[in-house]
Amino acid sequence: MKDEKKFEKLEPIRVKALDDILGVPFKILDDGFVRVVDYLGSDQSIVQAARVSYGKGTKQVSQDRGLIRYLLRHSHTTPFEMCEIKLHIRIPMDAWRQWIRHRTANVNEYSTRYSLAIESAQTTSSKQWRIQSTDNKQGSSGFFDTKLGKEMTADEKFLHDKSREIYNKRVEQGVAREQARKDLPLSTYTEAYWKIDLHNLLHFLELRMEKNAQLEIREYANTIGREIVKRWVPTAWEAFEEYALNSKEFSGFELELLSLLANKKMEDAKKKADKYGWLKYKDGELKFNMERWEFENKMNDLKIELPW
Amino acid sequence: MKDEKKFEKLEPIRVKALDDILGVPFKILDDGFVRVVDYLGSDQSIVQAARVSYGKGTKQVSQDRGLIRYLLRHSHTTPFEMCEIKLHIRIPMDAWRQWIRHRTANVNEYSTRYSLAIESAQTTSSKQWRIQSTDNKQGSSGFFDTKLGKEMTADEKFLHDKSREIYNKRVEQGVAREQARKDLPLSTYTEAYWKIDLHNLLHFLELRMEKNAQLEIREYANTIGREIVKRWVPTAWEAFEEYALNSKEFSGFELELLSLLANKKMEDAKKKADKYGWLKYKDGELKFNMERWEFENKMNDLKIELPW
Amino acid sequence: MKDEKKFEKLEPIRVKALDDILGVPFKILDDGFVRVVDYLGSDQSIVQAARVSYGKGTKQVSQDRGLIRYLLRHSHTTPFEMCEIKLHIRIPMDAWRQWIRHRTANVNEYSTRYSLAIESAQTTSSKQWRIQSTDNKQGSSGFFDTKLGKEMTADEKFLHDKSREIYNKRVEQGVAREQARKDLPLSTYTEAYWKIDLHNLLHFLELRMEKNAQLEIREYANTIGREIVKRWVPTAWEAFEEYALNSKEFSGFELELLSLLANKKMEDAKKKADKYGWLKYKDGELKFNMERWEFENKMNDLKIELPW
Amino acid sequence: MKDEKKFEKLEPIRVKALDDILGVPFKILDDGFVRVVDYLGSDQSIVQAARVSYGKGTKQVSQDRGLIRYLLRHSHTTPFEMCEIKLHIRIPMDAWRQWIRHRTANVNEYSTRYSLAIESAQTTSSKQWRIQSTDNKQGSSGFFDTKLGKEMTADEKFLHDKSREIYNKRVEQGVAREQARKDLPLSTYTEAYWKIDLHNLLHFLELRMEKNAQLEIREYANTIGREIVKRWVPTAWEAFEEYALNSKEFSGFELELLSLLANKKMEDAKKKADKYGWLKYKDGELKFNMERWEFENKMNDLKIELPW
Repeated sequence: MKDEKKFEKLEPIRVKALDDILGVPFKILDDGFVRVVDYLGSDQSIVQAARVSYGKGTKQVSQDRGLIRYLLRHSHTTPFEMCEIKLHIRIPMDAWRQWIRHRTANVNEYSTRYSLAIESAQTTSSKQWRIQSTDNKQGSSGFFDTKLGKEMTADEKFLHDKSREIYNKRVEQGVAREQARKDLPLSTYTEAYWKIDLHNLLHFLELRMEKNAQLEIREYANTIGREIVKRWVPTAWEAFEEYALNSKEFSGFELELLSLLANKKMEDAKKKADKYGWLKYKDGELKFNMERWEFENKMNDLKIELPW
Repeated sequence: MKDEKKFEKLEPIRVKALDDILGVPFKILDDGFVRVVDYLGSDQSIVQAARVSYGKGTKQVSQDRGLIRYLLRHSHTTPFEMCEIKLHIRIPMDAWRQWIRHRTANVNEYSTRYSLAIESAQTTSSKQWRIQSTDNKQGSSGFFDTKLGKEMTADEKFLHDKSREIYNKRVEQGVAREQARKDLPLSTYTEAYWKIDLHNLLHFLELRMEKNAQLEIREYANTIGREIVKRWVPTAWEAFEEYALNSKEFSGFELELLSLLANKKMEDAKKKADKYGWLKYKDGELKFNMERWEFENKMNDLKIELPW
Repeated sequence: MKDEKKFEKLEPIRVKALDDILGVPFKILDDGFVRVVDYLGSDQSIVQAARVSYGKGTKQVSQDRGLIRYLLRHSHTTPFEMCEIKLHIRIPMDAWRQWIRHRTANVNEYSTRYSLAIESAQTTSSKQWRIQSTDNKQGSSGFFDTKLGKEMTADEKFLHDKSREIYNKRVEQGVAREQARKDLPLSTYTEAYWKIDLHNLLHFLELRMEKNAQLEIREYANTIGREIVKRWVPTAWEAFEEYALNSKEFSGFELELLSLLANKKMEDAKKKADKYGWLKYKDGELKFNMERWEFENKMNDLKIELPW
Repeated sequence: MKDEKKFEKLEPIRVKALDDILGVPFKILDDGFVRVVDYLGSDQSIVQAARVSYGKGTKQVSQDRGLIRYLLRHSHTTPFEMCEIKLHIRIPMDAWRQWIRHRTANVNEYSTRYSLAIESAQTTSSKQWRIQSTDNKQGSSGFFDTKLGKEMTADEKFLHDKSREIYNKRVEQGVAREQARKDLPLSTYTEAYWKIDLHNLLHFLELRMEKNAQLEIREYANTIGREIVKRWVPTAWEAFEEYALNSKEFSGFELELLSLLANKKMEDAKKKADKYGWLKYKDGELKFNMERWEFENKMNDLKIELPW
C-alpha cells in the first residue's frame, strides 16, 4: 500500500468465558433451553469497528470502556452489529410466534412438515396459573390458588394427551404430517437455530426483558442477557444495563414540568399541566389521563412531589 | 434547477381494476380471506423508477412492456420495489407460522394477549384429509376415502370443541389471556395486516405457489397472485409467469449434457454422466441419484431422449 | 365468514394536504430538491393497523390522537410501518453517501454508468465556508469571513470546471462512462427515487435532523420532516416532535443523581458522583469526563444546580 | 429434557484454510485490498442448520455434499445464512457506491467527517483506459492505445494532484473536514469493515462476478469468491459455481422452443417464434428483438441450430 501500513496476520477473537459454556444448555420453562452454538467477535470487536470509522483520529479517545459506553449511549449502533451469535433454542410455539416477529435474524426451525412434531408441550404446574391483569390489558398479575390451579392443570393434561393421541392416530393412519399437526396445541415445543448480531440482539432483549413482556419469552430473554451476553461482551452489557434497561426517557413537555418541579415552582407546574390538558375533573375527581399517569410514576420514582 | 427541468404536479397513480376490488375479501379455506387494503404504484411506476436509473439515455428503450420484461428477466429488482401493497389476511396460525418467515414485510397481527382469540379454527371436511407423500417427505399426495375421513373429521371437531371449551373456561375463571390461549390448536384463525413491496411479494409467490408448498398457504398465494397482483400490475405479472413460474434453470453440467443430447451424441453424453458419478449401478440396477433424477425430469418435459 | 363480519368496499386513503403538493419540488442547497412522488396511508392507517392488533378489545381506547401518541411513546413501531412514501431526491453524491447508509428503504438511483453524469456539482458561496468545530471532531461551527471565502469559492470553481472538462474530454474520446466518471468531485449531484415506511423515515429524521448531523443532509431532513411528513401525518408528526425530537434520556445513574439534586441532597449527590468516578481532580482542576459533562448539560437545561 | 437428549459441550468451528490467511490482505486495483477479519461457521454449519429443520428425519439423507448441493440448487437459503464473514476492504469510493447498495450487510466505514481523507485515489495506467461498449450501454469493451492513454493518465494525475492540493489547503485553513472533502474525486480510496452472511454474500458475488458488472467491483468480487469463499466453504463454493455462476435460466416460452429445436421440428419452432412476435422483418431484414437475441445466444452456446 502507498501509505506503508502493514497488516499482521490475525488470530480469531475468542472470549474464554463464552467458550467455556459453548453448547451447554440453560434450562428454561419446564422443557425449554437455550445454548450458544457459536459466535463472532467480542467487546474488542466493537472498539475495532468504531476505530475504522474514526480512522487515525482516535488516538486520544479514552479507553475502550469509555468508547463502548459512548457508542451505546449515542445510538452509534453499527459497531455493535460487528458481533454475531448463534443460539440453539427450544421453546413453545406460542412464545416462538412472538420471537419470530423480530425480523433481523437468521433462522432455521425444526420442520413438522418433514419430521414428527416434538413430543412435548409446555405444562403448567398448579401454582403457575396467572391472573389476568386489570390495569394492563395484555399482562398478568399474581397467581391462582393451588386448588383451582390443580383443576386447570388437569384440564391442560387432558388436552395435551388428547391432542397428542389424535396427532399420533393421524400419523399412523398415514395423514400427511403437514396436515396431521394442525390441531397440536400452541404450547407444543419447537426448536430452532437463531443467529443475530449484537445490536439487534440488544434491541430484542430491551423489548423482551421488559416487565410487560410475556413471562415465557421474558425468561428466555433474561437468560440470554444475564447468562450469555454478559459473559460474551461484559462491557457492552454493563453499558446496556445502564443506558437501556435502567434508563428513562422524558418528553419535551415532561422536561419542562420536571424543571419547574425540581425548582419548587409548584403553581407554574400546575398551570402548565392544566394548559396541556392533564388536569380535567369530573365530579370533583381528577379524570384518568395516561400521559399524566406515566409522568406521575416517573416523578414518584424520583421522589419528586406533585402539585395536584 | 440549473438544467431548467420543470416538474409538474403529479396525480397519485391509481389502477382501476384494483380500486374496483379494494376492501373486498377473497374467501380462502373454510374461513379465511385476503383483501386489499391499499396500494402504491402500478406497472407504470416500475417503468418510471427504471427510467430514473437510466436517466436521459433511455429515450430509445422500446416500450414499457419490453422494459418490464427485461428488468424481471435480468433480476433488476429495485424498480419492482417501488410498488407496495397492503393486505388484510385471515389465516390459520399454522399457515401463518410459515408466512411470517418472509422477513421483508411489515406486519400487524391480531393480539391474543390483548383480545380474546378469534373463535374459529380451520376445519377439514371428510374429503380433505391428505395422504403423506412417499416421494416428497414434506408433502401430501391424494386424499383418504370419505369413510375414514368422516372419523378424522369427528376427532377434529372433538378437539376443537374441547380446546375452545377449556379456553373459555380459563378466560371465565380469570386466567390471563396470554396464558389461557396456550393450548389452542395451531389451526386457530388469526388476522393480520401485511404490507410488502412487489419484488418481495413476487419472491413470496414464487416460493408459495410452487407445487411443493403446503396446500393451505398455496391457496393464499394463488389467490394473491391470480386475483390481486394480476389486476394490479398485469404486465409485471405476465413477465413473472413467463420468467419465474414457468421457467427452469439448468446447471453448468446440465447444459453440457443438454447440448450433447440435442445433437444426438448419445454415447458422449453417457460417458460424461458416468464420469460425473450419475450412473452408479447396484445389482444391475441404476442407483437412485437425485441430481440425475431432476435432470431426467427436465429432459422428459422437453421430450428429449436419454441414453441410459 | 363464520362470525358474520361484513367488509365494505374501501376507498384509497388520501391526504389532501399532501396531494396538493404531489410532485412539487422543494428546493434544497444550490441545486437540490426533494419532491413527493406518491404515498400510501395516513394518520388514520396507523390507527387502523393498531386496531387490528388490539382486535375487538379496543373500542374503549380513547381517541386516535391518544393512540398514536401512545404507540410512538412506547416504541410500538409496527403500525407506523403501515404508511409508505416515495420521494424523488436530487442531492450531492457526498450527502447521498451518508443517506444510503439507511438500509431499510427502496432505492433507484440515476446511473452514471448508463447515462452522462448530471452536469451540476454543489457550489459554495463565499459566505458558506464552515470552520472546523473544536469540541465536535466531526462538525463545523461558524463561517469564514467573506474575503477568505471568495478565494475558496474560486478554488472550488476551478476544480469543478477542470474536472468537468476532463470528464467531457474522456467521454468525447470514447472512454467508457463507468470509467470516465471516476474523478468527478463528490459534490456532483445525483438523483434517486427513495421509498420508505413511516417508522423508518422517522428514525432517519431523528438521526439526520439532529444538530450534529452534517449541514447538507440536515437540510434535506428538515424539509422532509417539516414540509412533507407534517402535512402527511400531522398527528404522528406532533407526537414525534414531542417524544423524539424534544425528548431526553436519562441513564440509571443519572436518574439517581437527578432524584438527589431535585431534593436538594447536594452532599449525597456529590458523594455518589465521586464514587462513580466523575469527580477526578488534577492540579486542583476537575478533569474532563464526558459522561459528567453530558449530565451537566442536561441539568443546565433543567435549571438544576450542581454541587461540584 | 424430557426426551433425554444430551448436549455435549461444543468447540468453535474453525476452518484451517481460512485461519491461515486471517488478516492477510489480497491486493486489488492499484491500492485496494480485501482481508478476512473473522468469520463464523463452515460447510459443516450449513449441514448442521439444515438438519435442525429436518429433525430426526434426516439420518438417511446422503452425504453432506449432496445436502449442500440440494439446498443451494433449490434455493433453501436459510442454512447458508448460518455462516457469517467479516472483511476489511480498501476500495475507491466510486466502486464502494455500488457495493453499499447491497443492504443486507453490516458496515463500518472510515469517516472523512471525523478524520482526514485517505491520501490515495485510484490511478489508471496508460494501458487501462477502457472504450465505451456499443452493445452494452453500461459497459466497456477493449482499451485505448497507449499513446492516447498516456495523455489521459496525465490528465488524471493533474486532477488528483489539484484536488488533493485544494483539499489540503482547505484543511490547513481550518475548513470543517466534512466540507473540505466535498470536491475530492470519486476515485478516492475509502476503507470499511463489511460483515455479511454466506447466503447474501453469494448473491452479491453472483451479481458482481457477472461479466457485465463494472470491472473495478468485479475484481473485488472475484478475489472474495475465488480466494476467500473457496477456502472457507469449499463445498458450498463448488455448488455455487455449478448452480449459480455456470447455470442458465430458460423461460416458459424458451423451453417450448428448445423442445421443438432439440427434436428438429424446425418449421414448428419458426411458426411459434413468429406467433410470439420474434420474427418481424423490415426491408427484408430481421428486426432486432432482445428476447430473441438472448435466446439465440443460449442456443449458440448449446450448439443448437436455429430455423430463421
